[in-house]
Amino acid sequence: MIKVGIVGATGYVGQELIRILTNHNKVKIEFITSSSYEGEEYNNIYLNYNNIFNHICEEENINELIKKVDLLFMALPHGMAHEKIHEKILNKVKVIDLGADFRFDNIGTYEEYYKVHHENKKLNEEAVYGLCEVYKDKIKKSSLVGNPGCYTTCSILSLAPLVKNKLIDFNHIIIDAKSGISGMGRGLNLEAHYTQSNESIEAYKIFNHRHTPEIEEKLSEIGENKVNVTFTPHLIPMNRGILTTSYCKLTKDVDYDHIKKLYLDYYKDSPFIRILNENISPSTKWVKGSNYVDMNFFVKDGRLIVISALDNLVKGAAGQAVQNMNLIFNLDETTGLKMVPIFTA
Amino acid sequence: MIKVGIVGATGYVGQELIRILTNHNKVKIEFITSSSYEGEEYNNIYLNYNNIFNHICEEENINELIKKVDLLFMALPHGMAHEKIHEKILNKVKVIDLGADFRFDNIGTYEEYYKVHHENKKLNEEAVYGLCEVYKDKIKKSSLVGNPGCYTTCSILSLAPLVKNKLIDFNHIIIDAKSGISGMGRGLNLEAHYTQSNESIEAYKIFNHRHTPEIEEKLSEIGENKVNVTFTPHLIPMNRGILTTSYCKLTKDVDYDHIKKLYLDYYKDSPFIRILNENISPSTKWVKGSNYVDMNFFVKDGRLIVISALDNLVKGAAGQAVQNMNLIFNLDETTGLKMVPIFTA
Amino acid sequence: MIKVGIVGATGYVGQELIRILTNHNKVKIEFITSSSYEGEEYNNIYLNYNNIFNHICEEENINELIKKVDLLFMALPHGMAHEKIHEKILNKVKVIDLGADFRFDNIGTYEEYYKVHHENKKLNEEAVYGLCEVYKDKIKKSSLVGNPGCYTTCSILSLAPLVKNKLIDFNHIIIDAKSGISGMGRGLNLEAHYTQSNESIEAYKIFNHRHTPEIEEKLSEIGENKVNVTFTPHLIPMNRGILTTSYCKLTKDVDYDHIKKLYLDYYKDSPFIRILNENISPSTKWVKGSNYVDMNFFVKDGRLIVISALDNLVKGAAGQAVQNMNLIFNLDETTGLKMVPIFTA
Amino acid sequence: MIKVGIVGATGYVGQELIRILTNHNKVKIEFITSSSYEGEEYNNIYLNYNNIFNHICEEENINELIKKVDLLFMALPHGMAHEKIHEKILNKVKVIDLGADFRFDNIGTYEEYYKVHHENKKLNEEAVYGLCEVYKDKIKKSSLVGNPGCYTTCSILSLAPLVKNKLIDFNHIIIDAKSGISGMGRGLNLEAHYTQSNESIEAYKIFNHRHTPEIEEKLSEIGENKVNVTFTPHLIPMNRGILTTSYCKLTKDVDYDHIKKLYLDYYKDSPFIRILNENISPSTKWVKGSNYVDMNFFVKDGRLIVISALDNLVKGAAGQAVQNMNLIFNLDETTGLKMVPIFTA
Repeated sequence: MIKVGIVGATGYVGQELIRILTNHNKVKIEFITSSSYEGEEYNNIYLNYNNIFNHICEEENINELIKKVDLLFMALPHGMAHEKIHEKILNKVKVIDLGADFRFDNIGTYEEYYKVHHENKKLNEEAVYGLCEVYKDKIKKSSLVGNPGCYTTCSILSLAPLVKNKLIDFNHIIIDAKSGISGMGRGLNLEAHYTQSNESIEAYKIFNHRHTPEIEEKLSEIGENKVNVTFTPHLIPMNRGILTTSYCKLTKDVDYDHIKKLYLDYYKDSPFIRILNENISPSTKWVKGSNYVDMNFFVKDGRLIVISALDNLVKGAAGQAVQNMNLIFNLDETTGLKMVPIFTA
Repeated sequence: MIKVGIVGATGYVGQELIRILTNHNKVKIEFITSSSYEGEEYNNIYLNYNNIFNHICEEENINELIKKVDLLFMALPHGMAHEKIHEKILNKVKVIDLGADFRFDNIGTYEEYYKVHHENKKLNEEAVYGLCEVYKDKIKKSSLVGNPGCYTTCSILSLAPLVKNKLIDFNHIIIDAKSGISGMGRGLNLEAHYTQSNESIEAYKIFNHRHTPEIEEKLSEIGENKVNVTFTPHLIPMNRGILTTSYCKLTKDVDYDHIKKLYLDYYKDSPFIRILNENISPSTKWVKGSNYVDMNFFVKDGRLIVISALDNLVKGAAGQAVQNMNLIFNLDETTGLKMVPIFTA
Repeated sequence: MIKVGIVGATGYVGQELIRILTNHNKVKIEFITSSSYEGEEYNNIYLNYNNIFNHICEEENINELIKKVDLLFMALPHGMAHEKIHEKILNKVKVIDLGADFRFDNIGTYEEYYKVHHENKKLNEEAVYGLCEVYKDKIKKSSLVGNPGCYTTCSILSLAPLVKNKLIDFNHIIIDAKSGISGMGRGLNLEAHYTQSNESIEAYKIFNHRHTPEIEEKLSEIGENKVNVTFTPHLIPMNRGILTTSYCKLTKDVDYDHIKKLYLDYYKDSPFIRILNENISPSTKWVKGSNYVDMNFFVKDGRLIVISALDNLVKGAAGQAVQNMNLIFNLDETTGLKMVPIFTA
Repeated sequence: MIKVGIVGATGYVGQELIRILTNHNKVKIEFITSSSYEGEEYNNIYLNYNNIFNHICEEENINELIKKVDLLFMALPHGMAHEKIHEKILNKVKVIDLGADFRFDNIGTYEEYYKVHHENKKLNEEAVYGLCEVYKDKIKKSSLVGNPGCYTTCSILSLAPLVKNKLIDFNHIIIDAKSGISGMGRGLNLEAHYTQSNESIEAYKIFNHRHTPEIEEKLSEIGENKVNVTFTPHLIPMNRGILTTSYCKLTKDVDYDHIKKLYLDYYKDSPFIRILNENISPSTKWVKGSNYVDMNFFVKDGRLIVISALDNLVKGAAGQAVQNMNLIFNLDETTGLKMVPIFTA
């Protein structure tokens, strides 16, 4: 059994992580921490855990707590993990950070976009970007994983085979992204107030969302050349799900079958990538609650549209973190992640 | 491995049954039938099953098909199963019918409310009502189970300990029930049209819903005296979930703790019943996707309110059917049903 | 032109009041105040008012501001108006208070339920309860109106003809009420967070909601005898609308037509009450955005169910306040309130 | 008073038209027709009209009915009006067609995309495209108006000032459009079934939606050069509203203020166009129930994003039809259209 601890267990990502881990037959959750709910039983905060998981939220004493575990999941708000994780911790346990602090190769970009001075640049260099389908081999050998966010996972997976094969113009990429409200987390704010977000749609952080540089950095690496993306996130009145509609210019005259073959090849060892039948448009309802990413392509006159759908709390957060854990501990990648998408929910 | 077949696999209940059974490690689905989708792959109808379950919908040739299985799930619209199930089938396989045809002891009530002439009255006498928490022993020995509906499960479980103990006035029971739209099924009609049901609420079939006589028959049996209920269902703009608010008159002067003790005792062998802490109101969001029923009580001046919540497609249909199967085949009742409620979804 | 001012204009009720008043051809809004948004343009807070209403939120200097107006709408949280309204103000202007402070005859009940020491008991005695269909004559002569809340309006209007005619048992009244989330207002809290309230339903404040004593006091007055009600509010995942399902025991053997006649008679001068055709169940979707209350009755074996639907922000708050204003200023009651319910919205 | 008739009054567009016209003080509705509901009272189909509008749906005998009116609104499914409208009708009354039959200059494009043989090509040449902000002068003199659809209105208004001024590359325009479900109408189909469309998002008719050629034809005309657009519609789980996110390449190095000035100038006589303050993102919630279009721009490195929001049933259908009627009859363009957007609904 892999013994794990979760720091920041009462956010939405922490909660989803516990949902998945309590059904993972190779894992035992040894402790959870929460600064807001210290001393409280978890199933009094999230009542779905009644009769299932009644751990008490502990004080966040990481140096002590790690003695009990093999792996630490950090599910804190951005800008908090980089101060808490240091070399000594990594000598003792593996760390998967679900925040942004260890996602960037270029630490300056991180500091600029997150308005944070990163305290652990050396450690950041050791960190591996936890996008399993792209960096699997590195992840397997890693001690510190920066788990990607929901928008980035959906965006990069949509485009990686294309930039890898230089099949699209790297300067004409538009990603129009749509996210359910749970992507904003559990914190209270007017945008996530029911009566303000229900029955409406709007874009936000146009041209300046933090996920843009993360997408650009990774795609540039995969494509071995600078990639520029226009990334526009929208809030959709639903709980879960991300859909990205990516617009590209083809650099070669290829058809649907050619592109599909390319993706099937690139993702041949990726059990969570599902390429749909021709002409079928992905929909978030078919992936809800699961770790799958559904994808398809539409080609016309040198233009290519890639549409992808995933569950932002699973493949976009907690599910991918568990997938990373599986890789690190040499388990089958899908262990504990075989949930059938729940329909209609 | 228990080999099962599903007749009527493309309705919402059939679909949920497959979700649960594909994660049940003692079950193998041998065939599925669908009159509307004969010859089609299941994962082209419900795309959540891509890479998971790609059976082809077969012709509904029951007599042939049962040769392959130990158990038949009938997930047909009401009024169809009673003609298809006969003695010879039951000699070969167990049957769990998820429709209404084998739910009533009083076949006349069934015929009156469903406007159907029942073709198999003799078989109906052998049938056991599949409300696991109440009829467990009978179910274990049964070959034909009439699986209860969503409203009835929630209503009867709410009140069984009270009528059993004659703690309430049998003539003053009001059940105000609220259901998500999936309870109406996959068939197209104006009431289930998005723009007609979204952002609105209404009651329907007031004083004449088919679940009323089913609730009354079973509660009368449990209470060994005629029970009358006023049952009012309402449609709520959400996909899943049922909440019942039951209003009773206490016949004795008892307090919360007394009632709670009564329920804990009555349900002491019922792993899916969760009695919440005092003052906590059950909510459908905490049971979604799971087989749990959350309950609580509120007492004041001789009045008692019982509130219960369940997932209409799981404990109110497919989950309970699997629970019945587990009982029939002497498996642990919770096998394949340990799904953590999914939040927020 | 009636000159009006709105104190507390940036809450949801204030906002709806402005929507109605800007289309009321006998009214001019002279000022609005907001303690949270002092100095800001209204249409920067509520962008629907762009090009329509760009008043600046003023400091709440009531004594000065009333010099400009004939009528003051108080749209403050409960427990604030009773300190601000005094005799001198009423000598100068009419006041319609949309909070709870002047709704109760029995000030002790108010103080108990709202945990507030009422500073203006003498004024409270002069106040008239602004339920237009019941207290029309008193309202016309009044200077201070306590405008009823949404649940109370729907509940009392549902039952007034029955208690007036002593047609139901005053000790067996159950009101099962369902409300959209806007009833909770604009303040941030976990219950109104999108991902906590969407796709779920729950009851709250069972046996102790503040509207219970308000309903009981008014119905007792109308029925000239103590009326007890069991009132259970539920939160429904939709923006607007209230539906009440009221359960009564008839004291006489009467049929649908008898009851309908009674209501038509009681409400013969009430243009906003719509009694539906027999067997049609009221739905909030048919009253949205309007001042109507839709009602119907269902009778069986001495039991009576009354179902009513209204828009909580209109007839349950701002619309009724304008109706009260019309009555006070001797305008036709429907002036500015002829909005057709908006469907589908 | 302008006397009008509505052919096809029981669809969602017809219903909204009646909502607007019953509050329009220069209009009298003389008749309505419906092939599905002939002989039925309108307020039994749409219960919001109780006490407001109880016309009986008449048989669609156009030649007779036009004797009573000055203007005919045709609110039929696409492909039906072109056969019904002929020269003699236009000699007698004005016609505003809310379907697609008279929207195209190039009748071949219409026939290709709608799979219909147009019976009235000569009449089509006289028809004017009813996009009020662009073709106002022509509309004023017209007898036959082809009222634009929701997507096209939002898309063309977003881009007209840019193509007019040749400020963007005509071959690199991407319109990512999001629509509420009411855009699919009242007809039953699986895509508009509550439990299939709620809590999910998907794109549809990628590269081949019928509105693409309509947008291209009109923008090409405005820009006096062939314009190509990539148009991708998405279904959003909400009742009403359209948001378009348009991606353009600037041909000149201009900033936000320059573009804003251009729009303010182009739309200086257009009371329903609202350009928001810099950095504010349009949202459908601020235009619901109204005839407004909210717009804003975002500029970076030669890339321009235009975001626009409107109510698909008002400015995208019935409201614009009334605006066209106002223009034809020389009324102030805003008559009957001053509804304040309803928030929160």
